[in-house]
Amino acid sequence: MKKITTADFSKINSAFSCFPTVLVTCDENIITVTLVHIFSFSPLLIGIGIKPERYSYSLIKDRKEFVVNIPTKELLEQTIFCGTKSGKDFDKFKETNFTKEKSDIVKSAGIKECPVNIECKVVQEIDTGDRTWFVGEVVNSKIAENFNVEDSILYWKGKYRVPGNIIN
Amino acid sequence: MKKITTADFSKINSAFSCFPTVLVTCDENIITVTLVHIFSFSPLLIGIGIKPERYSYSLIKDRKEFVVNIPTKELLEQTIFCGTKSGKDFDKFKETNFTKEKSDIVKSAGIKECPVNIECKVVQEIDTGDRTWFVGEVVNSKIAENFNVEDSILYWKGKYRVPGNIIN
Repeated sequence: MKKITTADFSKINSAFSCFPTVLVTCDENIITVTLVHIFSFSPLLIGIGIKPERYSYSLIKDRKEFVVNIPTKELLEQTIFCGTKSGKDFDKFKETNFTKEKSDIVKSAGIKECPVNIECKVVQEIDTGDRTWFVGEVVNSKIAENFNVEDSILYWKGKYRVPGNIIN
Repeated sequence: MKKITTADFSKINSAFSCFPTVLVTCDENIITVTLVHIFSFSPLLIGIGIKPERYSYSLIKDRKEFVVNIPTKELLEQTIFCGTKSGKDFDKFKETNFTKEKSDIVKSAGIKECPVNIECKVVQEIDTGDRTWFVGEVVNSKIAENFNVEDSILYWKGKYRVPGNIIN
């Protein structure tokens, strides 16, 4: 296999195929986030990476909470909208016709149309490179009885996907 | 859609479908890592989450470097091996028949059979919950000319997958 050595690190970004994509709500806003991962299983911590110039950044920094909402592929159009438009310019709940679902513990609402809503309280803020990772402890969660991960959305480098075939 | 509210957070872990899976080399060892993400694009930083009890933990903490090797689905068997066996008990290069490929900048070798090798120097260590996230700055990279992300491996909660169909 012939390899090229490169300092063009955009090639490296593109070497990852896809990551889960979620809709993060905080206060009245919705933001599509692919820089999201489980940071710890016990306690259960979820980290989201947000650039300071994003509208959601100061909301989350100020409120110290967020809700991770997992969309299904039927919500792709709204997911793209929330990832490309700013909360500065749009009321995204209104534009997407998403319904606010009251959370049990945090003040920010979740998205009723998403089958999974994970309420998080920020316990760590990590400045790293061009963004801050807000690490939230999961304090409550709601899951649709018929939720199927096969229906969820993956994203990276301009391409939205569904989960692929299981190979083991 | 009927939702259940749950404090059983293992359900939340399972609500994520899959994440990219990589083979991380440090010194003479190989570890399969799914807790990996781009932490920053500029500079390009990659974070990997490792529990202190893992053999690789003290290697990376000591050497302050690692190589992220992206395997293809043809390397699934070796990927499973490196994720389930400890470097304490096995010489994983030997057991997998992987070939050490000299890195250009860091001292740890990459895996020749992997089409992508990303050399990283640790610039931050973040203790969060049950593990440490080692954040590495990308200092060099090699990519196979015929590399295709469609051939890469995704993993979560016991299931290995390939990337699924593009839906946008």
